[in-house]
Amino acid sequence: MTESLDRQTAAARLRAADDILILSHKNPDGDTIGSALGLCLALRALGKNAAVLCSDPIPKMYEYLDINWYDGSFEPSFVVAVDVASIQLFGENNNVQEYVKRANLCIDHHGSNSGYAYATLVEPQAAAVCEILTDLIPDNLGVPLTPAIANCLYTGVATDTGCFRFTSATAKTHLAAARLMEAGAEAGRLNEILFECRSHSRIEAEREALESLEYYFDDRCAMICLTRDQIVQTGVANAELEDLTSLPRSIEGVEVGLTLRQQPDGSFKISVRTSRDVDACAIARRLGGGGHNRAAGCEISGNLDNAKRAILQEVQKELARCDEERELE
Amino acid sequence: MTESLDRQTAAARLRAADDILILSHKNPDGDTIGSALGLCLALRALGKNAAVLCSDPIPKMYEYLDINWYDGSFEPSFVVAVDVASIQLFGENNNVQEYVKRANLCIDHHGSNSGYAYATLVEPQAAAVCEILTDLIPDNLGVPLTPAIANCLYTGVATDTGCFRFTSATAKTHLAAARLMEAGAEAGRLNEILFECRSHSRIEAEREALESLEYYFDDRCAMICLTRDQIVQTGVANAELEDLTSLPRSIEGVEVGLTLRQQPDGSFKISVRTSRDVDACAIARRLGGGGHNRAAGCEISGNLDNAKRAILQEVQKELARCDEERELE
Repeated sequence: MTESLDRQTAAARLRAADDILILSHKNPDGDTIGSALGLCLALRALGKNAAVLCSDPIPKMYEYLDINWYDGSFEPSFVVAVDVASIQLFGENNNVQEYVKRANLCIDHHGSNSGYAYATLVEPQAAAVCEILTDLIPDNLGVPLTPAIANCLYTGVATDTGCFRFTSATAKTHLAAARLMEAGAEAGRLNEILFECRSHSRIEAEREALESLEYYFDDRCAMICLTRDQIVQTGVANAELEDLTSLPRSIEGVEVGLTLRQQPDGSFKISVRTSRDVDACAIARRLGGGGHNRAAGCEISGNLDNAKRAILQEVQKELARCDEERELE
Repeated sequence: MTESLDRQTAAARLRAADDILILSHKNPDGDTIGSALGLCLALRALGKNAAVLCSDPIPKMYEYLDINWYDGSFEPSFVVAVDVASIQLFGENNNVQEYVKRANLCIDHHGSNSGYAYATLVEPQAAAVCEILTDLIPDNLGVPLTPAIANCLYTGVATDTGCFRFTSATAKTHLAAARLMEAGAEAGRLNEILFECRSHSRIEAEREALESLEYYFDDRCAMICLTRDQIVQTGVANAELEDLTSLPRSIEGVEVGLTLRQQPDGSFKISVRTSRDVDACAIARRLGGGGHNRAAGCEISGNLDNAKRAILQEVQKELARCDEERELE
């Protein structure tokens, strides 16, 4: 059973610690990296040994963050995980799991956090861990936000909200962005790198995806599909494929957007994105998957036709349920 | 010679006035519409007659704003323009120019404002007129921000900054967004309408554009091309085609992005978008066009091969010039 902390207590634990190892989740995104490095810089400003460890290398677009990777030069006596909801999400490389076992603290914004750490600071209403750290670092840890720290935290706040587009972005998220920019975050430069630059392979994958676009149920459902061959040939990164999953749902009138990606074992990973009152999780759950109201996923083995038939059947049921409910309103 | 006002004085003029006509610029965007309607609602809350007039109808995506259009039911005794930098930008329809002549006040964020109104409040550092009004309406005009007003102003702040992506978005812009969301702006719903909805025809045009994608000069130049047939067949709107012009430049490593669109007369309209120190205007000017440093355009008659050859020749020259300059640095 994990101990649930408030900001003040979490900061006090960090202030009392030294030789601190900060863990990010596998397939790292802007929030887990930004919060890990931002916290690392703040702890170093307090004169402590601190470094970051992650199972996977960071995507190229985050290379502007000069990460203090753990190189074994100190023996960690305090382990803190940032933006990691459960143990499986840490990955297996770089001996990460060895440190996970003795995680002293986890700072997270996922309400689903499994409580694997000895103590946890979870704020589900925060759009990003970096949003929490934007106040925690100066107000509770007592370290002024430098431009370098601000750039780290802006990275997480901006990427986890699709540049303030998602419903997860609240007034507090904008207040955090304002505070970070006042502290010297180069928002303009970072936004260009994070949101206006697409790799050749991503463009190629986008072309293939649009080529595969199909509409169903009076255009209320749109589906794109990438086979294993296409994924390998384009060389598109996993994070970029993740981005693509928002494409079918972004089409006018589409209530369910489906993205099918063939896995190395031939099965299909299906991402379900919905709008309005359509329950993505209900669709995915019936096929053994899960997720949130508007974003969920599942995996289906068998060939493409089977996968399509199975997921479309569940989409149809859910759309019918919505139609009934809407009529009752 | 226009009189330059501060917020307090501008608000005092509005408080003293009645029968107020608010003018937007032609081809209205989110900021001119959002600030016009937001101001209109605030003035009505003060018990005044107020209405909005614009030369052109508003784009479909702004239809969620329930605009109080001027219907001639009162004779305007005070005219205020919002987000309009010069007289030509008002357009010619709906008898607009008649009212422009006696504009009592202009509230704007364009440093280039020509000063056509009797009095002007210009704040060039504001990302949007709606950003100015977010504080002016409650703090100077004395009208609390209602959810309806907040939705109007959020529309302008978000659209004029590409959802907080552009360099024009400052810490103050985020503070404005936070204030508007605290006042009830439905940011999530509006962002979905404004930034996450693409028409079927736009998706189709994007597919065709990606299909046509070609790289030149070691991938430093990317080109997309849409023939007249493709434009007609997809039924894509002009504004959506404008959006597409940012696509080739958004590809990693691309310094010059070119978009060729065939016109009804068969000629090719070419949009030039550049990054870093590459001068888009220099490229377009040599072919009889013009524009800005990073965004310019020109038109070339003749067939597609001719158009490509002509523009690529100029791109090559400009890239060579940049290489020379960079070597000297």
